Amino acid sequence: MSNVDQKAVNTIRVLAADVVAKANSGHPGAPMGMAPAAHVLWSRFMKFSSANPKWINRDRFVLSNGHACVLQYIMLHLCGYKVSMDDLKAFRQIDSITPGHPELGVTDGIEVTTGPLGQGIANAVGLAIAQAHMGAVFNKDGFNLIDNYTYCFLGDGCLQEGVASEASSLAGHLKLANLVAIYDDNKITIDGDTAVSFTEDVEMRYKSYGWNVLHIEKGDDDFEAIANAITEAKKSTDKPTIINMKTTIGFGSLKQGGHDVHGAPLKKDDIEQLKKKFGFNPSESFVVPQETTDHYKELAAKGDKLEQEWNTLFKSYQEKYPKEASELTRRIEGRLPEGWEKALPTYTTSDAAVGSRKLSESTLNALAEVLPELIGGSADLTGSNLTRYKGATDFQHPSTGLGNYSGRYFRFGVREHGMTAICNGLAAYGGLIPFGATFLNFVSYAAGAVRLSALSHLRVLQVATHDSIGLGEDGPTHQPVETAAWLRALPNLAFWRPADGNETSASYLVSIMSQHTPSVLAFSRQNLPQLAGSSIEKAARGGYVLEDAQDADVTLVSTGSEVPLCVEAVAKLKEQGVKARVVSLPCFEVFNAQDKDYRMSVLPSGHPILSVEAYSTFGWGQYSHDHFGLQSWGSSGPYDQVYAKFDLTPEGIAKRASKVVSFYKKRGHPVYSPLISALDDISDE
Amino acid sequence: MSNVDQKAVNTIRVLAADVVAKANSGHPGAPMGMAPAAHVLWSRFMKFSSANPKWINRDRFVLSNGHACVLQYIMLHLCGYKVSMDDLKAFRQIDSITPGHPELGVTDGIEVTTGPLGQGIANAVGLAIAQAHMGAVFNKDGFNLIDNYTYCFLGDGCLQEGVASEASSLAGHLKLANLVAIYDDNKITIDGDTAVSFTEDVEMRYKSYGWNVLHIEKGDDDFEAIANAITEAKKSTDKPTIINMKTTIGFGSLKQGGHDVHGAPLKKDDIEQLKKKFGFNPSESFVVPQETTDHYKELAAKGDKLEQEWNTLFKSYQEKYPKEASELTRRIEGRLPEGWEKALPTYTTSDAAVGSRKLSESTLNALAEVLPELIGGSADLTGSNLTRYKGATDFQHPSTGLGNYSGRYFRFGVREHGMTAICNGLAAYGGLIPFGATFLNFVSYAAGAVRLSALSHLRVLQVATHDSIGLGEDGPTHQPVETAAWLRALPNLAFWRPADGNETSASYLVSIMSQHTPSVLAFSRQNLPQLAGSSIEKAARGGYVLEDAQDADVTLVSTGSEVPLCVEAVAKLKEQGVKARVVSLPCFEVFNAQDKDYRMSVLPSGHPILSVEAYSTFGWGQYSHDHFGLQSWGSSGPYDQVYAKFDLTPEGIAKRASKVVSFYKKRGHPVYSPLISALDDISDE
Ligand SMILES: [Ca+2]
Ligand SMILES: [Ca+2]
Repeated sequence: MSNVDQKAVNTIRVLAADVVAKANSGHPGAPMGMAPAAHVLWSRFMKFSSANPKWINRDRFVLSNGHACVLQYIMLHLCGYKVSMDDLKAFRQIDSITPGHPELGVTDGIEVTTGPLGQGIANAVGLAIAQAHMGAVFNKDGFNLIDNYTYCFLGDGCLQEGVASEASSLAGHLKLANLVAIYDDNKITIDGDTAVSFTEDVEMRYKSYGWNVLHIEKGDDDFEAIANAITEAKKSTDKPTIINMKTTIGFGSLKQGGHDVHGAPLKKDDIEQLKKKFGFNPSESFVVPQETTDHYKELAAKGDKLEQEWNTLFKSYQEKYPKEASELTRRIEGRLPEGWEKALPTYTTSDAAVGSRKLSESTLNALAEVLPELIGGSADLTGSNLTRYKGATDFQHPSTGLGNYSGRYFRFGVREHGMTAICNGLAAYGGLIPFGATFLNFVSYAAGAVRLSALSHLRVLQVATHDSIGLGEDGPTHQPVETAAWLRALPNLAFWRPADGNETSASYLVSIMSQHTPSVLAFSRQNLPQLAGSSIEKAARGGYVLEDAQDADVTLVSTGSEVPLCVEAVAKLKEQGVKARVVSLPCFEVFNAQDKDYRMSVLPSGHPILSVEAYSTFGWGQYSHDHFGLQSWGSSGPYDQVYAKFDLTPEGIAKRASKVVSFYKKRGHPVYSPLISALDDISDE
Repeated sequence: MSNVDQKAVNTIRVLAADVVAKANSGHPGAPMGMAPAAHVLWSRFMKFSSANPKWINRDRFVLSNGHACVLQYIMLHLCGYKVSMDDLKAFRQIDSITPGHPELGVTDGIEVTTGPLGQGIANAVGLAIAQAHMGAVFNKDGFNLIDNYTYCFLGDGCLQEGVASEASSLAGHLKLANLVAIYDDNKITIDGDTAVSFTEDVEMRYKSYGWNVLHIEKGDDDFEAIANAITEAKKSTDKPTIINMKTTIGFGSLKQGGHDVHGAPLKKDDIEQLKKKFGFNPSESFVVPQETTDHYKELAAKGDKLEQEWNTLFKSYQEKYPKEASELTRRIEGRLPEGWEKALPTYTTSDAAVGSRKLSESTLNALAEVLPELIGGSADLTGSNLTRYKGATDFQHPSTGLGNYSGRYFRFGVREHGMTAICNGLAAYGGLIPFGATFLNFVSYAAGAVRLSALSHLRVLQVATHDSIGLGEDGPTHQPVETAAWLRALPNLAFWRPADGNETSASYLVSIMSQHTPSVLAFSRQNLPQLAGSSIEKAARGGYVLEDAQDADVTLVSTGSEVPLCVEAVAKLKEQGVKARVVSLPCFEVFNAQDKDYRMSVLPSGHPILSVEAYSTFGWGQYSHDHFGLQSWGSSGPYDQVYAKFDLTPEGIAKRASKVVSFYKKRGHPVYSPLISALDDISDE
């Protein structure tokens, strides 16, 4: 332990106390406890270039216990990232780049959004998979272009979360030796001593997952032990490592070791004694001693040099492997291959009626060939989700004989939450377009991670088959009713429910082109006919007129498997002299982003609009005057009988449409499109 | 192994194949593999009375791998429950009592709804906690009234799910010796061999949780080994037990041991050879040999006798402990104590403005005294959720010195999904009203279990504090935007967002009186004033007129912390000559259940209605013409500044209300209440 190290660690601790005190909000305990680990990791191991935070081969650092983000912001500041002392002073203030929990896209050097516990370690598994995959695809003899590590700090809270268990079990199975987790074993959670709820043997648990388990007894001051453990971890060749590091929460505070120091600023006198104890002037705040500044400047310079060396290496690689180099460049830059979208299948009405999950499979088969960055898999529903495209190789450790790391298909196991959080990590790495797959109903299991895909602007696709009561016999436990409403209410998430083959292609087209938006693609189990009037181009606008009618009496607006029922209903209505249009609205989010003229042309004023969907009608008020859907749960039985039970048939739809038409005719007033809002231009004022 | 046993097991296997074949849908593999365990458990250990399936001291059986429910239906049939051979023949048919996955309330003898993987084992933990608690409260020397066991079958899928990890870790911590899980270790999941995704050491993992781990090598035919393991498990005094039982999936089928037999009916020739092999006539179906029928009749009679003995025991208990006996009876019958609701606090405008989480705390303090069946806790946010009522004792194993089994407060750890699934088990046991607690945003982590509370009609309360951007500095990672929409779209779930103290009392009143509906109660972190015009009675209708105005120009409809902002906006509007009403709508679900006249009196035709809520406006179309809310995520900062950033202030509201008024005046047509629907009486036709 050198003086420089000790001073740096003390600086981090004091600064953490200052930052939280100024914000009068935040978590000083974990940053003060983990300061030694952060300093040792960043100063001796982390490969980073603060001048180019997006350097592809940088080591990834994930703070799974995101509430400790003061620590991360301080490290970024010291290491020369674009986080100034003023930014630290603006911690937890409106529109600062130092929000209450780390957010990807807000702050340079933040790799993933954390705070919701357990997500970070699962993201880290995704980041580690991404490195293993990219390395396997692009590295060549003498060119270890992609060989970075992923380091993750996590606390008791993360370890208690199921999402962490799921991802950790899979990481062990996949033998991800490039992943090093450091567990802040401080025996404290918000409720107090871990003795009240968390007495499992964490080391044994991680051994059971197939991890390499190390420990550090004196995490508060034994810097060499920390360094030795990380060195040891990096020697692992076929296991991820977790280092169990005992620390004292809030080290240095008068309240160190207790839960009072977890989530509230230290008192003034406590900060004073802390500064005195650590050799700082108690009347000064936000101070970084010159030698600490210098030390980190040196580290930053070293990091930049590493990147330059890598650039040199990459130049030789370019000469020797021009094709691979230009492909890697393309993928790092996030450009899609020229003309990739031509691979999307198109359909005419003469094509067979099949479940849209089959249409999804055909699309994946086509896209897998033209988009090598498309990687993904299923949460143990491969044969039902139909996601394993032709000729796929599994992503598995080569020693298993089941695949290799250049494989692009994942066997996620029955781990929906872990899968989605891992996909977030894959997307955050760069150069990859990940997808997960499960039944639509079980996307809810992953709600915590789906929300973070959206908040973090990550292009993650979820293939969500068996999307309604149309799955039939499995019954209400498996039939989503509320799921679409939840996903549609989520900002920056595109929930697609294609009605046929062209719409399926459109859903993939837009999802893949939306570089900063995740998508959930809902597909049917039951067969659906190919519709007259659909096209990729039209569906790509999120909603369009599938079947028009002059002087229409009513518009039926619908999604997915109910669209063909509406088409049939139109024929029945015609017999009754009722003129009906059909609008297909596969994606609310994308439709809402179209210009108003277009939207009004799809859902115009002049006649009533009836929505038809085999879900809760919640949320349809924005598009329709009346809504036909499910009032409650589904039912177990052959799917056509389930639809009949709820009157969701062409007849049932026509009956309601007639009723709506009569109702509005009787009312006798003009009928306005629900798209019209009094508040539309409120921001203009 | 006797002939009777072998014949019974063969009967179960053959019957399982028949049932799935007739339905042409379902999962024969696990039922055939687990038939020996089911037979041994039910014939030698299960304490049940099929004549009285609700007998409080029955052993609970949970089929966590619910897709294997054919097995459970067959056992219920054989044991004399109200599941006839015709019911078995109607497996997976509309409105049968044998749906595709087991549903609580649909079939006698089904204890919890399973199928969504991982839930069952977590429910089982809840059932085991319930027994431990009820036993600790009601048992007396010589009166082991409540001493049942909870048995749970589970497969690889359940073990991979995070919710199972969370609940299992807690079960080990709580030393629940009354819980016996049997793991069907058949090395197969839907994706094929477990080698592709699930290679962890399950036994070591459960040891790390503090469980007793046993195994059975030959689960296909070693009935004595199964019996010995269960006997051994029941000797445990301070650990739950998991028995790792190796079986062959689809035992007896030509395809046994492979994943083909998991989720599809056996082929005709396969069933024929199965019947021949097991000594059945291949041309007959749905056959139970007489000696098997007789054997199970005997078992059923034995079970009924056990219940009668218990009734006798209870009679003596009544004599010796009349108060306790009548209390136990009351709780088993689900009657609330006379006058309990008088304990609910009421407020006037002179009471202090406090966060509604504080109001929730006061209510819990009051209710804990009058409702001994109210038990619950927090997912490691006790000090933030404010759920630990005055004088609470923790539910902990007495050896820890931290509490005892009669304690009613739970330290769930950071395990939201496990917590909620455990609460489902607690509610399913009977005699208890459980609650969980976390931030509203993290109720999403538990989505899988919340959905099942609703589908299973279980009265589970979730205290969900920090309910909006009003939590301030923690930022968008913790600020729910979409959560309310999801919960409101869920059938049979009451999402409450009280605006003040009286509404808080109302939310608890209705939640506790709703015996078959779960509730999520959203409370603020920030202070809220006590409103003029609120009352428990009014709020208990889900929505009411808080502030009326004659010849109103506009109604502001709002919930929770935005209601007082609307009240302030009314004053501002008055200055501008605009007459505004305020409707508080704390619970959509409850308001929707009111008669139409009442609802129309709250949200009448004649003037426009503007909703105001610090959430996504998704779903407000059913109540309001225009909607003011959040278009995207929240922001990290002091809460009042966050509100100001989004213009969610009395001024911002008034500005929009004026605009809405002008818009509709200019339009010049009558304005109709959004409650009016053309389809209202569609079912009358
Ligand atoms: Ca901790
Ligand atoms: Ca299995």
